[in-house]
Amino acid sequence: MTNGRNSNRLRLVRAHIDTSQQPVVFMHRDCGVCRAEGFSAMARVLVRAGRRQVVATLNVVFDERFGHDVAALSEAAWNALDPEPEAMGSFSHAEPPGSSGALRAKVFGQRLDEAQFQHLMRDAVDNRLSDVELAAFVTACAGDRLDIAETIALTRAMVAVGERIEWDSGPVYDKHCVGGLPGNRTTPIVVALVAAAGYRMPKTSSRAITSPAGSADTMETMTTVALDLAAMRRVVEREGGCLVWGGTVCLSPADDVLIRVEKPLDFDSDGQLVASVLSKKVAAGSTHVLIDMPIGPTAKVRSAAAADLLEARLLATARAVGLEARVLRTDGTQPVGQGIGPALEARDVLRVLRGDPLAPLDLRERALDLAGHLLALASGIALTQARARARELLDDGSALRKFMAICQAQGGFREPLLADCRHPVLAHREGRVLAIDNRRLARVAKLAGAPGSPEAGVDLRRRLGQAVHAGELLFEIHARTEGELQYALDYTLAHPSIVAVGDSP
Amino acid sequence: MTNGRNSNRLRLVRAHIDTSQQPVVFMHRDCGVCRAEGFSAMARVLVRAGRRQVVATLNVVFDERFGHDVAALSEAAWNALDPEPEAMGSFSHAEPPGSSGALRAKVFGQRLDEAQFQHLMRDAVDNRLSDVELAAFVTACAGDRLDIAETIALTRAMVAVGERIEWDSGPVYDKHCVGGLPGNRTTPIVVALVAAAGYRMPKTSSRAITSPAGSADTMETMTTVALDLAAMRRVVEREGGCLVWGGTVCLSPADDVLIRVEKPLDFDSDGQLVASVLSKKVAAGSTHVLIDMPIGPTAKVRSAAAADLLEARLLATARAVGLEARVLRTDGTQPVGQGIGPALEARDVLRVLRGDPLAPLDLRERALDLAGHLLALASGIALTQARARARELLDDGSALRKFMAICQAQGGFREPLLADCRHPVLAHREGRVLAIDNRRLARVAKLAGAPGSPEAGVDLRRRLGQAVHAGELLFEIHARTEGELQYALDYTLAHPSIVAVGDSP
Repeated sequence: MTNGRNSNRLRLVRAHIDTSQQPVVFMHRDCGVCRAEGFSAMARVLVRAGRRQVVATLNVVFDERFGHDVAALSEAAWNALDPEPEAMGSFSHAEPPGSSGALRAKVFGQRLDEAQFQHLMRDAVDNRLSDVELAAFVTACAGDRLDIAETIALTRAMVAVGERIEWDSGPVYDKHCVGGLPGNRTTPIVVALVAAAGYRMPKTSSRAITSPAGSADTMETMTTVALDLAAMRRVVEREGGCLVWGGTVCLSPADDVLIRVEKPLDFDSDGQLVASVLSKKVAAGSTHVLIDMPIGPTAKVRSAAAADLLEARLLATARAVGLEARVLRTDGTQPVGQGIGPALEARDVLRVLRGDPLAPLDLRERALDLAGHLLALASGIALTQARARARELLDDGSALRKFMAICQAQGGFREPLLADCRHPVLAHREGRVLAIDNRRLARVAKLAGAPGSPEAGVDLRRRLGQAVHAGELLFEIHARTEGELQYALDYTLAHPSIVAVGDSP
Repeated sequence: MTNGRNSNRLRLVRAHIDTSQQPVVFMHRDCGVCRAEGFSAMARVLVRAGRRQVVATLNVVFDERFGHDVAALSEAAWNALDPEPEAMGSFSHAEPPGSSGALRAKVFGQRLDEAQFQHLMRDAVDNRLSDVELAAFVTACAGDRLDIAETIALTRAMVAVGERIEWDSGPVYDKHCVGGLPGNRTTPIVVALVAAAGYRMPKTSSRAITSPAGSADTMETMTTVALDLAAMRRVVEREGGCLVWGGTVCLSPADDVLIRVEKPLDFDSDGQLVASVLSKKVAAGSTHVLIDMPIGPTAKVRSAAAADLLEARLLATARAVGLEARVLRTDGTQPVGQGIGPALEARDVLRVLRGDPLAPLDLRERALDLAGHLLALASGIALTQARARARELLDDGSALRKFMAICQAQGGFREPLLADCRHPVLAHREGRVLAIDNRRLARVAKLAGAPGSPEAGVDLRRRLGQAVHAGELLFEIHARTEGELQYALDYTLAHPSIVAVGDSP
């Protein structure tokens, strides 16, 4: 072999190119490494520097101004390797991931066991699976292609490849909404209520997957959410609750990797949803979890039959992984609150906590329902009593004080900023609001820039059944830029019955 | 709207970056377009220039040397737009592809109709589907998730979105091998024989999908294969046959797009395989097609049961799209010929055509079997007579003359060049060759660089059942570079029984 020690090495430089979470390496077509290794464009390349390594996708440069002695790394690759100044990297073909046999088996409809799922999730977390492979995995698990035993195995596998928080003994409460209902931002209110009642509720939330905002996106408009585990623990020790982003504390990091492809594909499935939710709860050290399951024709869960299936899968999986879970079915026929989008939802949350006369009543009531169930679960008292206690804590300002204290502990509170670019969408006729299309409304908010632009979204001004006159405001679109406002508006014009007005039946 | 006419425009420059078939656009984080449109990294961006457009993935640059007034295009994006010098491009968010509803339906297990498949294939050909979406589609169709009616619909959809060759009336013969058998390079010999017998066989072939070489890769080591339709027609009119790459003539271009993700995933499925093969045949204007189906434990078709299913699907689909098809089941227990890899297989083909004493007998016999079946089909004479006629045409040099004439008509013949870097793999013990692992042998050839490096591959020197002594040559690895040779060798050392030698049973 003439392949000497240094023929596969290049100096690592920062490309100053953002490719989101996908590591990319740029090399000259005629550099020693491309020649020696026979690399071609889009090859999966293993890059080693010091004691770190990353698998990156190769982009082949043939601009002569680009050095033959360097490899330029995209931000994701640069951050993964974190190289010393002037560090050399060594390059080789990335072997197919060890879990490719398991992936292939799942794609062709075989059942996988926990060890196979763990192999896949380990490779996902270590960035050894390309987006194409992740998309194949997510698709192979879609619909009813994961049975309950596999859902349990996947949940355990996702827990196993991440960190796990150990709390002092005693119950740890948690909640989750299965989503699909724009604006359903009860979490900050519920956490404030439960913590104000003296129970422990260290809430980690995700960012939006396919929706215009996740709880973490909303909280981020008011305080810092990217806390590490030690910081999160300090907040909870002091205040009994926290409202942080789960990504930073490395709970079920495999989930964050899967979300990377679920987001552009705009779908997730029952099995993956259950594994995603419950792995986060187990990893967060929760003992009791209340699940808000909105049901409606354009919500994520569309029928009682679908709810039955999902609830059975959730409860069976929770039991298997040692969680006490309850499912609360809620109305999913229309959005909750007025705002859809991070800052607009934060505004609604603050209005409820502050007892503002403009507070959306439905958001307030739903938060009280959820908090009531959690307080009943925690204290053993009857649900009606527990709900009354929650209302007391909200109305006497205890929940607001607790919320502010949590934000303070997380790094300080700030008022969410709303958008300057706004456009009203008016009723074309007189009548009543007969239907609201949650999915299309969420799409408008996303086209307007949510959650990437936190101030973007939709401010919904009418509820189901309300009477409207022609020319009255149905909703207002908020955006950071006129360009995004225009996209959202174009879509709205193309779908005139997102808020359907007609004669009452 | 303050969004003026020019705020979403940038000057287009060539990035001189090869990202294979994936269009990528590089823009500065602070350029007017990123600000106005609220683009973030990996966004799907619609780029328009003149009358052309392409959907590209956004890489966000924050190197200050990169202009704020330009957008740099990867080769795939540059070629798709083919902009005038100094041309301006306009940029907007790419709408989700119109076929995303159909994709979602298939992912969740619903059956699709021809219109839905056509929408998907049109979007695939127009580059409106990202690799992640293509991977989801391919996975959603894997295993038995496409039924026969869907296979027929997908086949028709793939034909519909590409060009279709119309030949003068009369039969047009074709062949196809379902693959999985390294070195089974009968096509050039069969085409030469059928054309030498006076029948029409305009053969379009694909490049390798998951194998170390496709017929197009092999032919390319001897002549030009990237002919457009007019050139191909001239060759066939003059010589009765041709051996060209199907990609250039735009037959079933959707197939080439799907292959882009099937290749890194290293799988295809029965439904997709049938649609891929038969859509190419229909588009090529073929009327009669002979399908070589090797069966063996490490071939693509592993059992008679699997062959039954695939054959039923092939014949039903062929009938539905108006093709007369025959399936010939062949021995798939070991590679055919000696060479595995484009140039090594070309060498074997030439040895058979030239009657070289070193010609692999099995390749010769299999080519004669296939040609015999086609001649019987074409002339109506009995199979034994037809096969004898084929042997005559091979032995009297007619096939060689026809092959050379076809190469000449395609642009000239050249001898395939073999690799300089070679490494022998020897038997560790005395015994007989008990098994040959086709898949691992193909993997060795691919690690050695095939088909990207046409001279790379494996030269197999022993057949099943042959006696060997310790230290005798089992196979030789060929590579363009020492680095690639080393990969292939490392893999071979890790899998010592790719050619298994043991005591005869």
